[in-house]
Amino acid sequence: MLYDDAEKWSREEIEKAQIERLRRSLQQAAASRFYGALFREHGVNPDAVRGLDDVRRLPFTTKKDLREAYPDGLLAMPHADMVRMHVSSGTTGAPTVIYHTKNDLDWWASLMARCMHMVGIRPTDVFQNMSGYGLFTGGLGIHYGAERLGCLTIPAGAGNTKRQIKLITDFNVTAVHIIPSYALHLANVLRDMGVDPASLPIRFALVGAEPYTEAARRRLEEMFDMKVYNSYGLSEMNGPGVAFECTEQHGMHLWEDAYIAEIVDPETGEPVPEGELGELVMTTLGREGMPVIRYRTRDLTRFLPGPCPCGRVHRRIDRIAGRCDDMIIIKGVNIYPMQVEAILMAMPEVGQNYLIELDRVGVMDQITIKVEVKEEFFVEDMRALTGLQKRITSRLRDEILVTPRVELVEAKSLPQGEGKAKRVVDKRGTDS
Amino acid sequence: MLYDDAEKWSREEIEKAQIERLRRSLQQAAASRFYGALFREHGVNPDAVRGLDDVRRLPFTTKKDLREAYPDGLLAMPHADMVRMHVSSGTTGAPTVIYHTKNDLDWWASLMARCMHMVGIRPTDVFQNMSGYGLFTGGLGIHYGAERLGCLTIPAGAGNTKRQIKLITDFNVTAVHIIPSYALHLANVLRDMGVDPASLPIRFALVGAEPYTEAARRRLEEMFDMKVYNSYGLSEMNGPGVAFECTEQHGMHLWEDAYIAEIVDPETGEPVPEGELGELVMTTLGREGMPVIRYRTRDLTRFLPGPCPCGRVHRRIDRIAGRCDDMIIIKGVNIYPMQVEAILMAMPEVGQNYLIELDRVGVMDQITIKVEVKEEFFVEDMRALTGLQKRITSRLRDEILVTPRVELVEAKSLPQGEGKAKRVVDKRGTDS
Ligand SMILES: [Zn+2]
Ligand SMILES: [Zn+2]
Repeated sequence: MLYDDAEKWSREEIEKAQIERLRRSLQQAAASRFYGALFREHGVNPDAVRGLDDVRRLPFTTKKDLREAYPDGLLAMPHADMVRMHVSSGTTGAPTVIYHTKNDLDWWASLMARCMHMVGIRPTDVFQNMSGYGLFTGGLGIHYGAERLGCLTIPAGAGNTKRQIKLITDFNVTAVHIIPSYALHLANVLRDMGVDPASLPIRFALVGAEPYTEAARRRLEEMFDMKVYNSYGLSEMNGPGVAFECTEQHGMHLWEDAYIAEIVDPETGEPVPEGELGELVMTTLGREGMPVIRYRTRDLTRFLPGPCPCGRVHRRIDRIAGRCDDMIIIKGVNIYPMQVEAILMAMPEVGQNYLIELDRVGVMDQITIKVEVKEEFFVEDMRALTGLQKRITSRLRDEILVTPRVELVEAKSLPQGEGKAKRVVDKRGTDS
Repeated sequence: MLYDDAEKWSREEIEKAQIERLRRSLQQAAASRFYGALFREHGVNPDAVRGLDDVRRLPFTTKKDLREAYPDGLLAMPHADMVRMHVSSGTTGAPTVIYHTKNDLDWWASLMARCMHMVGIRPTDVFQNMSGYGLFTGGLGIHYGAERLGCLTIPAGAGNTKRQIKLITDFNVTAVHIIPSYALHLANVLRDMGVDPASLPIRFALVGAEPYTEAARRRLEEMFDMKVYNSYGLSEMNGPGVAFECTEQHGMHLWEDAYIAEIVDPETGEPVPEGELGELVMTTLGREGMPVIRYRTRDLTRFLPGPCPCGRVHRRIDRIAGRCDDMIIIKGVNIYPMQVEAILMAMPEVGQNYLIELDRVGVMDQITIKVEVKEEFFVEDMRALTGLQKRITSRLRDEILVTPRVELVEAKSLPQGEGKAKRVVDKRGTDS
C-alpha cells in the first residue's frame, strides 16, 4: 500500500485520524514499562484524550529517557513480534534502540515510497542507494521505500566512486540517494574522467543526512542537471520518510497521518508562535511495536505558514536550522549558527567561512560576525565594501532579531570551520 | 509464505513441480534476448519439454555468457517490473548482473526463511546479521529471510567487533550470520576481554561465504557452544537460500522445488556417476525476471547418496570442494586440493600446512604431498612416524583414487599457504 489516500487528505481527515490514532498509540504505549510508569506518574489516561490540544498535556520523552530505558523499556508488544531493530551509533553516551514489527516496517516503507512518489519518481525509474546499510536507518529505510514504490533498486552502498559511476551509466540510473558532500566528490571524479556530471542520466536526488544550504542545493542541481529534494527523518521516528519536499521545494511536508508534530521553545517546552523557530517535538501515530510520545528531537525548525501550492495539506517544516544544543542566547534572544550561515551563503559576494564572536561590553552582550569576502569582490579599501557590509547587517538583523557587528575579511583569513563548534567563539565567560 | 509445504514434498511431488516449472522457466527465458537466440540456435522448444531428462539436452549457460549479455540480455520481463539488482564485484573481468521482480524477492526470502526454520530458528530468536550489505547478496539475502521468518533482525553489518559483542550480549542474540575467520577473530577479542565465547547466548551460526573444513566447524561449535550450519548460494541463483544443512549436518539440502541441480564432469559436461565429485550445474525454476538455465557454477561438489535421516527428500550436496578452476588432472583423474585438505585437517597429528607437488617421472605423473606434523607428534627419527604416514597415504588414496607419495615434515617448515594456488606446485611443464 502506498497510502496515497492519506497523502491527499484534507485537514479535517488528518485531524480525525490523528485523534483516533493518538488514543490508540497512547493505549499501546501504556503497555510498555517506561510509559506505564510515566503515565501513572503524570495521571495520563489514554481513553480520556478527547482533542488534539490534549497532546500538550502529555509528558515529553527525551533522548535521556530512551537511553535509560535501554534496551527494551519502551517495548509495547511481545519481544517475539519484533522483526527489526536499529541501534544508534552511540558515539556520544549510551546507545538507544528502536524496535519494529512487520506492520511497522510495512508502514515505514509506505511512507518512504510516498515521499519518492510525491516528487515524480515512478516504478520505471532506476534508483541507486549510495548510503551505507546496516544499523544506519538511511540505508535500509530508503531501500525498502524504493522497492515498495517498485523502482529497480541498486543497493550500491557507500563509497567505491568508480563503481558508483559505472552503475549509474550502465543502468541508466535516474534517481539516487546521496549525501551532498559525496555528490561534490562524485562531480570531481567525473570531471577528472572528462565527464560532465550534467551528462549523467540522474534526474532526482534524495538528500537527507547532512545539513547543507539552499545555495549548495542549487549548485548541485545545476552541476548534475537534476532536482535535489530534502528529506527529514530520525531513527526515533523510524528514519527517513518523516518529512519530504514536494516539487515546490519550499519546506518538507511532514506526514501528519503518521506523526503529530509540535514546535516548542527548547528552554520552556511551550509552543512557539506559529512560524517561529523552535524544537521539533514528535509523536508516532502508526508504530505499534514501540510508540514514542512527544519526543524532543533537539532539531530546530519552524512550520511554514499558509497552504502549499501543491495542494497537500500536511504541514511543512523548514529545513533543519541546527540542533538545540547549538543555540546561542544573546540579549535574551535565541540564535542558531545555521540561521547566520543560511543568510551568508545566499549572498554571492561571501566566501567559504565565517565566524561568530560573542562578547560582553559592560553588561551588554555583543555579537560580531566575521565574514570572508570572495577574492574577486575584495578590495583593500574597506570603504568600498560599505554597501555590502550594510546589506549583510540588515539581512542578518531581519533573521536573528538582534543587530550584529559585521566585519568583512579577506578570503581564507578565517580558520577553516569544520563542525559547528568552530563557528562560534564565546568570550563572555561564565562569571555573570 | 514460508513454503514449508514444498520443504516436505515427496520425490514425486518435487518432480511433478520441477517439470511444470521448468517448462514455465524456459518459456519465460525465451522472452530474453540471450535465450531467445540460444534456443533458436539449439532448436529448444520449451513446450516440447516432457520429462526431466530433457534438461540434459538444453544448452549450458556460463559466466562468460552472463558477462557478454551484460547488462540486460537475460532480462525476461519488462525492465519496469524489476525492483532489485545485484552486480558481481567484478574483481575479475566484466561484471555480471542479476535482476529480481517483487515475486522473485518474495520467493528468495521464503527460501532463506525455510533454511533457517529447518535448523530450529524461530520468530522468538534474535538474529544478528554480521555480513556486509549492499551489492553482496549475503547481506540483504539473509536479512530478508530472517525478517520473513519473523526473527528480531539486527542489521549489524560487518566489522566493529566491540559493538558486535555489545549487541550480542545486550539483546541476547541467539542466531548469527558470520564468516568463520571473523568468528575466530571475535573469539580472540572476547578472550582478551576475559569473556569465554561459550558464555555468549548464540545457539545457531549460519556460515556461507568461505571454504572451511569440517574440523574448523567443530572447533567453532565447541568454542562458542553453538551449532554451525553451512549454507550454499551464489548470486546467479539469487544468493543464500539455495542449499542448507539440516540438523544432521551431513550435506546441504538443495531446494529442488526452486532449482534443478545436476553434477557434471567439468571437462566433458556429461553427468558424473551418482555420488562422484563434479561441477554443480543449476537451473532456476522460480525466478520470473531473469531465469537462468543450466548454469555452470564452477563449484565442485557431489550429491550425497541415500535418504537423509531428517526425512526431507530434497537432494543433499556435499560441502563445496573448491572451484573447477583449481582442478588438477593426474593419471587421468580429477583431483581438487580441497579434497586433500579435508582429509589432512581431520587428522589430529597434522599441522597447519601442506603442499601438493606434481612431477613427471618418465611418462608417469607423480603426486607428492608434503605434510606438516604438529610439534608434539614430531620425532627426528622418521621411522617412528611410519604408521602415521601409512594412514595418511591410505586415506588420501581412498579419497583421490591415486596413490600419492606422502612426506612428513616438521611444523612451520612449509611456506605459509595463503590462497589455493600456493598449495600446488606443478613441475610437469607443458612440453608433453
Ligand atoms: Zn507541497
Ligand atoms: Zn536432512
